[in-house]
Amino acid sequence: MTNQSTSTGIQEAIAAADEKFMETFNGGDAAGLADLYTENGQLLPTGSDFVTGTVAIQAFWQGAMDMGIKTAKLETVEAEGHGDTAIEIGKYILSGETGNIMDRGKYVVVWKQVGGQWKVHRDIWNSSLSAQGD
Amino acid sequence: MTNQSTSTGIQEAIAAADEKFMETFNGGDAAGLADLYTENGQLLPTGSDFVTGTVAIQAFWQGAMDMGIKTAKLETVEAEGHGDTAIEIGKYILSGETGNIMDRGKYVVVWKQVGGQWKVHRDIWNSSLSAQGD
Repeated sequence: MTNQSTSTGIQEAIAAADEKFMETFNGGDAAGLADLYTENGQLLPTGSDFVTGTVAIQAFWQGAMDMGIKTAKLETVEAEGHGDTAIEIGKYILSGETGNIMDRGKYVVVWKQVGGQWKVHRDIWNSSLSAQGD
Repeated sequence: MTNQSTSTGIQEAIAAADEKFMETFNGGDAAGLADLYTENGQLLPTGSDFVTGTVAIQAFWQGAMDMGIKTAKLETVEAEGHGDTAIEIGKYILSGETGNIMDRGKYVVVWKQVGGQWKVHRDIWNSSLSAQGD
C-alpha cells in the first residue's frame, strides 16, 4: 500500500467514524455516544477538568443535550494515521432545535482502533466564537 | 529497544521540548517561541479561528505577553510517540507578573520531529476555569 492510499484510507475511516458520532449525537443517544469512546477515553472540555471514562462521558453529553444542543456537525480538516492511532483536526458546529448555531469551533481528536473499530480516545475542542458572541 | 524504553525516551524528549518552550515564553521572546513550531504550525485558540504559520503564531504569543502573561508552566500528563510524530496531553498555568494565575487549563499538542528537533505542529488548549472565574 502506498502512502497515498494509506492516507486516503485513514481519511475515509475517520470520516465514517465522525458520521457515526453525528448520527448518534443527533439521535439524542448519550449512552451510545459514550460507547464510541475507548474505555478510558477522556474529554477535555472548556470550563472543566478532564472528564474520564464511559459513565462521566455519557453524563457530560447528556448535559449538553439537556442544554438544548440537538445536532453536532463535524468536519475533518486533516487526519493522519499511525498504526492503531489516528490524529484528527476538525471543525464543529453545535445547533439547537430550530437550527440556531449554539457554538462553533475546532477540535483535535486522538482515535484508537479497538477491536477493529475506531474509537475516540482523547477529545479536546474550543469555541471559535469571541467572548462577545460574534 | 523495548516499548518501555521507547516510551521513556519520548517522555523525556517532550519534557525537554516543553522546558525549552517555557524558558522561551518566560523570557518574553515571542519570535523565539514561534520558532519552536513547524513552518506550517497551527494554534487553535479559544475565541479565534486557526492561527497558521510562524508570523501569525509570533503575533499571537506577543499579544498574550502584552496582555500581561509573564510565565507559562506546562506539565505533561501523557506523551506517546509514533515515529516522527508525538502526541502530548498536558496541563498549563499562565501567570502574571506577581505570580497571579491568569489562566489554567489543559492542552493537546501534536509534535513533529524536524531536523532532529521536536517542534510543535498542532497546539490546542482550553481553560479549566469556569465562566464564573473560579
